[in-house]
Amino acid sequence: MSRFSEPQHEHFRALNTSLDFDRRLWPYDIAQSRAHARMLAAQGIISGADRDDLLAGLDAVEGELAAGTFPFEATDEDIHMAVERRLTELAGPVGGRLHTARSRNDQVATDVALFTRAAAETHLGSIDGLCRALVDAAEAHLDWPLPGYTHLQRGQPVYLSHHLLAYFWMLQRDRERFAFVVGQTAALPLGAGALAGTNFATDRGMVAQELGFARVAPNSMDAVANRDFVLDHLAAAATCATHLSRLGQEIVLWSTEEFGFLTLADAWTSGSSIMPQKKNPDAAELLRAKAPRIAGHLSALLGVLHALPLTYNKDMQEDKEHLFDAVDTLELCLWAARGMIEGATFHRERLAAAASDELIAATDLADLLVKDGTPFREAHGVVADLVRRATAGEGSLRDLVEAQLGAEAGAVLEQSSWLESKVSEGGTAVARVREQLAAARAALAG
Amino acid sequence: MSRFSEPQHEHFRALNTSLDFDRRLWPYDIAQSRAHARMLAAQGIISGADRDDLLAGLDAVEGELAAGTFPFEATDEDIHMAVERRLTELAGPVGGRLHTARSRNDQVATDVALFTRAAAETHLGSIDGLCRALVDAAEAHLDWPLPGYTHLQRGQPVYLSHHLLAYFWMLQRDRERFAFVVGQTAALPLGAGALAGTNFATDRGMVAQELGFARVAPNSMDAVANRDFVLDHLAAAATCATHLSRLGQEIVLWSTEEFGFLTLADAWTSGSSIMPQKKNPDAAELLRAKAPRIAGHLSALLGVLHALPLTYNKDMQEDKEHLFDAVDTLELCLWAARGMIEGATFHRERLAAAASDELIAATDLADLLVKDGTPFREAHGVVADLVRRATAGEGSLRDLVEAQLGAEAGAVLEQSSWLESKVSEGGTAVARVREQLAAARAALAG
Amino acid sequence: MSRFSEPQHEHFRALNTSLDFDRRLWPYDIAQSRAHARMLAAQGIISGADRDDLLAGLDAVEGELAAGTFPFEATDEDIHMAVERRLTELAGPVGGRLHTARSRNDQVATDVALFTRAAAETHLGSIDGLCRALVDAAEAHLDWPLPGYTHLQRGQPVYLSHHLLAYFWMLQRDRERFAFVVGQTAALPLGAGALAGTNFATDRGMVAQELGFARVAPNSMDAVANRDFVLDHLAAAATCATHLSRLGQEIVLWSTEEFGFLTLADAWTSGSSIMPQKKNPDAAELLRAKAPRIAGHLSALLGVLHALPLTYNKDMQEDKEHLFDAVDTLELCLWAARGMIEGATFHRERLAAAASDELIAATDLADLLVKDGTPFREAHGVVADLVRRATAGEGSLRDLVEAQLGAEAGAVLEQSSWLESKVSEGGTAVARVREQLAAARAALAG
Amino acid sequence: MSRFSEPQHEHFRALNTSLDFDRRLWPYDIAQSRAHARMLAAQGIISGADRDDLLAGLDAVEGELAAGTFPFEATDEDIHMAVERRLTELAGPVGGRLHTARSRNDQVATDVALFTRAAAETHLGSIDGLCRALVDAAEAHLDWPLPGYTHLQRGQPVYLSHHLLAYFWMLQRDRERFAFVVGQTAALPLGAGALAGTNFATDRGMVAQELGFARVAPNSMDAVANRDFVLDHLAAAATCATHLSRLGQEIVLWSTEEFGFLTLADAWTSGSSIMPQKKNPDAAELLRAKAPRIAGHLSALLGVLHALPLTYNKDMQEDKEHLFDAVDTLELCLWAARGMIEGATFHRERLAAAASDELIAATDLADLLVKDGTPFREAHGVVADLVRRATAGEGSLRDLVEAQLGAEAGAVLEQSSWLESKVSEGGTAVARVREQLAAARAALAG
Repeated sequence: MSRFSEPQHEHFRALNTSLDFDRRLWPYDIAQSRAHARMLAAQGIISGADRDDLLAGLDAVEGELAAGTFPFEATDEDIHMAVERRLTELAGPVGGRLHTARSRNDQVATDVALFTRAAAETHLGSIDGLCRALVDAAEAHLDWPLPGYTHLQRGQPVYLSHHLLAYFWMLQRDRERFAFVVGQTAALPLGAGALAGTNFATDRGMVAQELGFARVAPNSMDAVANRDFVLDHLAAAATCATHLSRLGQEIVLWSTEEFGFLTLADAWTSGSSIMPQKKNPDAAELLRAKAPRIAGHLSALLGVLHALPLTYNKDMQEDKEHLFDAVDTLELCLWAARGMIEGATFHRERLAAAASDELIAATDLADLLVKDGTPFREAHGVVADLVRRATAGEGSLRDLVEAQLGAEAGAVLEQSSWLESKVSEGGTAVARVREQLAAARAALAG
Repeated sequence: MSRFSEPQHEHFRALNTSLDFDRRLWPYDIAQSRAHARMLAAQGIISGADRDDLLAGLDAVEGELAAGTFPFEATDEDIHMAVERRLTELAGPVGGRLHTARSRNDQVATDVALFTRAAAETHLGSIDGLCRALVDAAEAHLDWPLPGYTHLQRGQPVYLSHHLLAYFWMLQRDRERFAFVVGQTAALPLGAGALAGTNFATDRGMVAQELGFARVAPNSMDAVANRDFVLDHLAAAATCATHLSRLGQEIVLWSTEEFGFLTLADAWTSGSSIMPQKKNPDAAELLRAKAPRIAGHLSALLGVLHALPLTYNKDMQEDKEHLFDAVDTLELCLWAARGMIEGATFHRERLAAAASDELIAATDLADLLVKDGTPFREAHGVVADLVRRATAGEGSLRDLVEAQLGAEAGAVLEQSSWLESKVSEGGTAVARVREQLAAARAALAG
Repeated sequence: MSRFSEPQHEHFRALNTSLDFDRRLWPYDIAQSRAHARMLAAQGIISGADRDDLLAGLDAVEGELAAGTFPFEATDEDIHMAVERRLTELAGPVGGRLHTARSRNDQVATDVALFTRAAAETHLGSIDGLCRALVDAAEAHLDWPLPGYTHLQRGQPVYLSHHLLAYFWMLQRDRERFAFVVGQTAALPLGAGALAGTNFATDRGMVAQELGFARVAPNSMDAVANRDFVLDHLAAAATCATHLSRLGQEIVLWSTEEFGFLTLADAWTSGSSIMPQKKNPDAAELLRAKAPRIAGHLSALLGVLHALPLTYNKDMQEDKEHLFDAVDTLELCLWAARGMIEGATFHRERLAAAASDELIAATDLADLLVKDGTPFREAHGVVADLVRRATAGEGSLRDLVEAQLGAEAGAVLEQSSWLESKVSEGGTAVARVREQLAAARAALAG
Repeated sequence: MSRFSEPQHEHFRALNTSLDFDRRLWPYDIAQSRAHARMLAAQGIISGADRDDLLAGLDAVEGELAAGTFPFEATDEDIHMAVERRLTELAGPVGGRLHTARSRNDQVATDVALFTRAAAETHLGSIDGLCRALVDAAEAHLDWPLPGYTHLQRGQPVYLSHHLLAYFWMLQRDRERFAFVVGQTAALPLGAGALAGTNFATDRGMVAQELGFARVAPNSMDAVANRDFVLDHLAAAATCATHLSRLGQEIVLWSTEEFGFLTLADAWTSGSSIMPQKKNPDAAELLRAKAPRIAGHLSALLGVLHALPLTYNKDMQEDKEHLFDAVDTLELCLWAARGMIEGATFHRERLAAAASDELIAATDLADLLVKDGTPFREAHGVVADLVRRATAGEGSLRDLVEAQLGAEAGAVLEQSSWLESKVSEGGTAVARVREQLAAARAALAG
């Protein structure tokens, strides 16, 4: 018995079906159905016997899904319908009672919220893993100088530990973002029904508690129309992936013959089909390339939700593939970044050679003049002129400096004298980096 | 024998592998390998016997791939390596000669160009199918009036045929876009080698001819670094999908109880899990929702290519999933749009009732005053004032018009008098629509 | 005296200059310079007299900027250089001391953080304003029935208050997003210098306190390379704008002749240049159209930061225009949404007529059968069949229902019986809506 | 006299007005009004005297606009209304006749089409300019070896000319894209009226001819709802900007101390506020950063048009700012790229030193073995093993090669022997590059 007198067109089915991708929601669908059945019985909406039959049936269905023996059928439109169909096959007509006081609209929203929360928590763990690798690498290279760059031009020398910790702090902010996502999944949609609430005296708080939601969604229409938490997740993932793309870019650069700062472990590189000498940093390149992919998912879902009238519209089915691929992609990137950092060999001599470029002491030289009373702007001009003359071949910067400013000024061009002078909070002096390391360790422990 | 002393990390493999998605390129990979082998022999780079062995081996490999019996292995990084590995298993060491004067870089670019060309041509056919459905529907509803809308407010009446043909012309421009894409795949990458050309006296023109390329790519570095044709395809697809999203939106609107202009065939709708009365236009909603998905792919690939140094970088492996999903999605949308149009039932009375709203004759009334000598701006003001008074309840627009402007003016408020007065080229008068239909039929035949 | 021997090309200047847009940062630039000068003196890096001269000079510069009399010059590359140049003109060579222990890199990051924080706080206020308008409108239309829609098909009746409050809760989540943004601007960049920290014993905490930052950025390289807070702001703005686009869409729909639920105040509509009868909901349409604009800014900035090596790169100058336009656009949209809601007239009869469609009681009818013991799935099927027969013209739904299920079932098709039965938490029953209103008022007061 | 009884809200005006940005359309608006007036008179819709008065009035208005003396008023909603208002002030009531048989909808579409065509043609010229600079630079560095890179790892040596010409061919495809855009603006919207055509016997062909359109738009509804040509322009601009971002990236890389391949002219660089030694490639960095900006505009406009019902909706007003900024941005980028190429100094020794890395002859060595009969895969393996041993410190690659493969093989590791062996069409051998140069010169002349 149905409202329709004609079967669905095969192309309609192909466009409409979501089973291919939403089947991975099954653990959440089973969990919410258990909670829902228990609540229905607790409220007297179904009997205790029905509840027990439903729970037993759900166990059986779960077993099949976990074992990969669940018999999907061509007419299963989505995982929710598949589970209910199978439940009814296994448990009998009582299966039809499970959908009492529930609609697919609130059911889907609940599954997606549960998935998103779990994914955000998974990312939190993987971010921690990468952060540990960064802290370990920073400790192992505490006082290895290299140039710090702006505009990819050598700017001022820093310690490698300081450079690596910059990524630590980016990732800590990503932690805050995913923690925010977790908070945005804290309102239970289930119980909103199709859109207006239900005709039954349900206890949504009971379901919320069992499923780990802090509260129930306060408005049934909003509950089924809301996918904000998916947007939040995609935004967090896009920013995190963008951080990883910066790391990937630096690994690619540092692995070049020209920079020569870094050799990746063989396990994280690949060769060429034709050029036998190549050792390519493919994983680092993919760190770069995956960021636009995730940003594209965010952009797409914002587009999907654009100008949608309330409440649920089929367009919202498009939330899942964007979310799932973003989650899988980011997770793989976090692992890859960790693996590359853990296996990377840094080349102290190449780093130090680059850091000892006397030109990059120019700022410090200007600061010396400032300490002697020259206004900064004027000092900057004096040194810039010396740099121009050195670049034009009039002599080494040191010779020109000593001739014009004296031996003390010349001495400042030695590397050891300036790295340790960056004593301001958050600066690269070793003492300050040690503070960062302590703070980082504390953050990881917290 | 390899340059590497350590196996790849499992996470590296997971991130790096492309076999899951690039396996669908196999028909193009086989085709290009055949052409390449024939050319190598024709140029004396391999022997005729080797060529024959390679061709026989490729036949065997093709047979396995087509039959679904090809034995993929966990170490197959991509379809190209899988095919070459299997070829060598089947044909012996001669399989190793196939990669002479070829690199994976030019090989992949060639496969993707062939795929893109085929996809564009497939879309051209499906666009034609949808266009035929639109022309048929336009002919069947040649003189059915409905309101034309601006700002979703009733503006001026038009014929349904005219409205439907508006989509025809959008889609004709999409044809031009995909024809442009075909043109952008006309330069053969193969023969560029890894990036610099090859050490062998190849005949790229021979390969181009066999594979249907009009010319060879003129610069080997550009040949392997170029994915413009994928961008072109995605841009064309995004625009086409955006057109379909407008159609989808109108189907959704027209299917509402409030508009009531249209009933979709049951085969293109679905029901609700909880609301028994619902007949939902899911396919039309998905037409809407798929446009941002394709636009997201375009956005992502532009992001991938952003700031990539020459020549090939691993990032470019990200071209394929975006392309493949966009192609599949658009194709499905074109079929769905056609199916919905073919099966739609329009409701003449609801359309006509909406079109007979006397307010929407206001423009024509102003034009009448213009023909009698009033400057347009002044006429517009006179009529706007009458509209304001009618809206404020002072009387029907017709009564107010006749009182102020005479009976002739009142008569113009009748529907039949104004639809046929839109006689300008491209206007909605039936004679003009017939011209459009003739032009449309000619375009489809051409 | 400079490092350069050739002037900049005019096209370089045109591309490179940011003064046209970054001049709006001046209040933040002045504020941070004051704090910086005070700190330099407190730490003995400059003298008290120099500090006083700098502060007096900054007062004068601020006066000119506020009055619009500041003499910008063609060679002012950005607002920071313009301010310093002018300061030196007004205060003499001491102006050159202000840049001691500061770089443009940390200076810009600080200005942008201050701007972002202020913008987020401004949005928080405007969101509150819109939320108040929604709550007021909800209270004024507490028990006005209208259909709730899914798939833009009538689903179940709800009260208008309930529908309006759905937007309230979306906007409350937007508040949480912007509050998160404020939190992400809490780490002071200033003091990071160019990238490595500074050679001076600064007190960053003092500056942080004066400027309202909760803490100092812990890593100097990250401090100047970080624009996460701008991404966070754009992501929050894109989601908020997407919410407004949904509201805009509903205003457009409800303003149509076909729906007829709503009339906008004249002050929020416009006419047509040619169709005198038109009253177009332009502002509502623009609510729709501005969401992709802001999403485009987010997408662009993610693209800019993609694969950027540390630390500062000129690319990051592109943060500002995207941010500024997003802020201005969203603010205007929030005001417009508020204005439209405040001035809207809802049409009780049209709403009620749509809500009394007997088909939309079908779910409730199924629930009645469930309460009598039929499993939900079976009840759904029974009712769907009755709907099909009614739609096929066999009789009114009520007649068919009474014939098959009895009079009690027929009675449930009356509107009053089902709206108030949605008693679940968050449902549309008036008592539940009153709970929502109380919660909303509390949230606004909190 | 108006339909409205209440003035527009100031926030509505702020959101709704487009004069700030659409005023730059004035030359196109004047041109189309002249053509329209002439046609109206030719068709007898207005008198010859009225036409002359209108043309004289338009001359006066144009004069004011060109001189910057046009008196804009706060109530001018857009440039079209401003021009008509001023025309009526200057020419008297006849000004009100200009809008006969025209609507703002077809008027705006026509202005935007004219602007787009002009912008595309401007870009074509600027692309030519950049292409000439590339060809000149290629000729000047015809046989300068440098490494060609894949994965930013040295792959095979190429000539600098060959590398530069890769950009030439990218830009030639951009020419084809903008030529396509020009073709997509060839259908005149004017004459479509508001949406349905007009009540007057206009001659659209006459207007088309005067304004340089090849044909008239065949469907009035499509004519006013169509912004495809703007999407086409933005797509072409996004791809072109992406090409320039790749060039920008290479300039940044090559300008580093580590690569040292290139020095930019001082005129295209800038210094640091704090680091006196810095010479930053800001323009090249901005080439990178502007690509996502333009891609963002494309993404936004696709979003705006997403799911818009026919015909004109206010949302479409958002076409202009995206288009205008993209045009200005790309034009500036094209100039900057040209300026940087023209002023760049390449460093032959650094390039040659990098190219003489013996490892990058490995492919050629494998090819040598192939020519001696070894299957390619086997040869690749032999050489890869030698590379591994050389990298592991067992000896120089040459020594190992000579020991295992003989002196002939060792000789192939000399640079001169392999660059000129890339004799395949499109390869880097000088003779092939000369062919490219000839083809490039011919393309520029054509």
